[in-house]
Amino acid sequence: MTVKILAFDGSGRKESMNRKLLNHVIAHAKEHGASVTQINLHDYNIPIYNGDLESGEGIPAPVTELKKLFMEHDALLIATPEYNGSFSPLLKNVLDWVSRPVPGTPGLSEFKGKVAGLLSAAPGKLGGLRGIYQLNTVLFGVGVTVLPNIVSVGFYGEAFDDQGNLKNDNDKNAVATLGKLIVKATTALKQ
Amino acid sequence: MTVKILAFDGSGRKESMNRKLLNHVIAHAKEHGASVTQINLHDYNIPIYNGDLESGEGIPAPVTELKKLFMEHDALLIATPEYNGSFSPLLKNVLDWVSRPVPGTPGLSEFKGKVAGLLSAAPGKLGGLRGIYQLNTVLFGVGVTVLPNIVSVGFYGEAFDDQGNLKNDNDKNAVATLGKLIVKATTALKQ
Amino acid sequence: MTVKILAFDGSGRKESMNRKLLNHVIAHAKEHGASVTQINLHDYNIPIYNGDLESGEGIPAPVTELKKLFMEHDALLIATPEYNGSFSPLLKNVLDWVSRPVPGTPGLSEFKGKVAGLLSAAPGKLGGLRGIYQLNTVLFGVGVTVLPNIVSVGFYGEAFDDQGNLKNDNDKNAVATLGKLIVKATTALKQ
Amino acid sequence: MTVKILAFDGSGRKESMNRKLLNHVIAHAKEHGASVTQINLHDYNIPIYNGDLESGEGIPAPVTELKKLFMEHDALLIATPEYNGSFSPLLKNVLDWVSRPVPGTPGLSEFKGKVAGLLSAAPGKLGGLRGIYQLNTVLFGVGVTVLPNIVSVGFYGEAFDDQGNLKNDNDKNAVATLGKLIVKATTALKQ
Repeated sequence: MTVKILAFDGSGRKESMNRKLLNHVIAHAKEHGASVTQINLHDYNIPIYNGDLESGEGIPAPVTELKKLFMEHDALLIATPEYNGSFSPLLKNVLDWVSRPVPGTPGLSEFKGKVAGLLSAAPGKLGGLRGIYQLNTVLFGVGVTVLPNIVSVGFYGEAFDDQGNLKNDNDKNAVATLGKLIVKATTALKQ
Repeated sequence: MTVKILAFDGSGRKESMNRKLLNHVIAHAKEHGASVTQINLHDYNIPIYNGDLESGEGIPAPVTELKKLFMEHDALLIATPEYNGSFSPLLKNVLDWVSRPVPGTPGLSEFKGKVAGLLSAAPGKLGGLRGIYQLNTVLFGVGVTVLPNIVSVGFYGEAFDDQGNLKNDNDKNAVATLGKLIVKATTALKQ
Repeated sequence: MTVKILAFDGSGRKESMNRKLLNHVIAHAKEHGASVTQINLHDYNIPIYNGDLESGEGIPAPVTELKKLFMEHDALLIATPEYNGSFSPLLKNVLDWVSRPVPGTPGLSEFKGKVAGLLSAAPGKLGGLRGIYQLNTVLFGVGVTVLPNIVSVGFYGEAFDDQGNLKNDNDKNAVATLGKLIVKATTALKQ
Repeated sequence: MTVKILAFDGSGRKESMNRKLLNHVIAHAKEHGASVTQINLHDYNIPIYNGDLESGEGIPAPVTELKKLFMEHDALLIATPEYNGSFSPLLKNVLDWVSRPVPGTPGLSEFKGKVAGLLSAAPGKLGGLRGIYQLNTVLFGVGVTVLPNIVSVGFYGEAFDDQGNLKNDNDKNAVATLGKLIVKATTALKQ
């Protein structure tokens, strides 16, 4: 039974440091047998959530596509930049749209029972920790089991070498641990 | 010296219950002498924050307009719906864009030293409290003094009468108290 | 392989409503094959944490006993009253003492890799939710995987019938679900 | 009209780094005309909160004394160590006992309307920030206006020189700003 992981970052930038970090965890997860679907949330081009839009035109097609993707996967790997002590609006917008109820599906089916691993890369010393903490709280509230083994990389400008590898052993270990654990935990919980 | 308050809600809906609630606080603030500018964040039509967009095209014109509005006011009245235990993506997106640095202005000038009052109307018993708590944490982090006198109205479908007035005395008192206090606190802190 | 759960409440009261609620989850966990050790934190009579006490006299004997208990169990069931929007000082004190490092044992061994289920009974409508949220954040920080399937019972004075059973079906289901899931999740993650 | 500030730290250690940091803010607050009462919470020797103790023997005498002290002051300066991502049990215990209702006094009178300034010194890079954030949330919930101008000193072993002065200009400025602002804000809000 293959673990299916949906991976994305909350940045939207083409050269996102968070995606760069995420790629390392994805590589480890694949080594441990996971099937990983990586998407760029920005590419879905989803409008900012507005109740009138939803009631007037229904759930936008790309949101329906994302809802389907969430349903088809067992786990989430989410890397997020931190803005003002919380995670990105791009990410919040996707989570909120994906959580919208549709007739015939129990509420929050896209989230409940999933396992999540969280990452953050940030330019300062805190390593995006406050963003991860607020994201953990939100995911806890929608029924996701969040692994406490976070990856939080500060001073990201100095964190990677020219080949894009992490320089620091602690960071390397954190990345390897999360990649391994998300597969193990999800496999276990799917049984 | 007149206190200038910028008031908005995080919903974007035309018939937003949060705006309805906000209007009551605004009325009280005006009674106590405040000048209130009320805006609809949705009308600014701001794209979701993306670092590439910012570095490629600069800060969008409506964001610059909002930054100016923030600078011209002494206090914020913010009503927010709660989605998934946090405040709305519309609101997070505006706060994050407005916080973006511009040359020649000290960082977070749009927020530092301001006073904020927070409100939430929600369909369930919790009254949007978790959204208010996450918003308080974010505003605390950017240098805003948040008044602890929140207005949190649960079961909003039953909270207003046909004339749009709050039925419940506790809610009425909370609204009156916040409207009065934000003027008093801002006046005091401006001196 | 039997799952070993350490269960306790943060109240310390003899007739604690939180313990009453906890007992129901324990019964379900046992039905699903768990071995449950239930303790009363108050009985351990642990002094409030103070760094001077620790450096002067070492870790108190009852703390060492608790540390051993934590090490011997795979999962935690914690029920906590909410005081001032957070969990109880009795509980925080135990968690902080138990987390104190001892030579020869990797840091936070008492917590890392454990699964936790959280409960709260409270007299008001919020059902102790804010206490559960702060507790979730703390446990996340020390390496515990917290199940999102919380049990939060508000208006606890009316929640139980004369036989001590929960009246409300939602509450009954939440209790049964948590009892079942903590066994399932812990079994899975131990493998 | 003199501003009266109650100042304490959550450590209880005789040589508390948090108290050392607090002393600097107190000095600045006094320079700006405040009257400061500094207490050591540990000396009050308060038992861990337990509802049975309260209902059986009433509120302990030292708690009553603290409640009186809180009532007599306009503002709080609180320095707290961080344990496990939250503030100390010594501090939580005092806040919870002090918040206990007594007949004839409106609930939370000890907190409502007060201004607070928060500090933290910590051995690691995060500077106790997570403890400050959880404390902010708790104080927000009991009606305290918390100043966003926190003082968070990381790597405290290297932060002070031999005379006990802060080495770093950012830290010095943060301490001076908080000392000045708590007097200004409290003066303003008392009017």
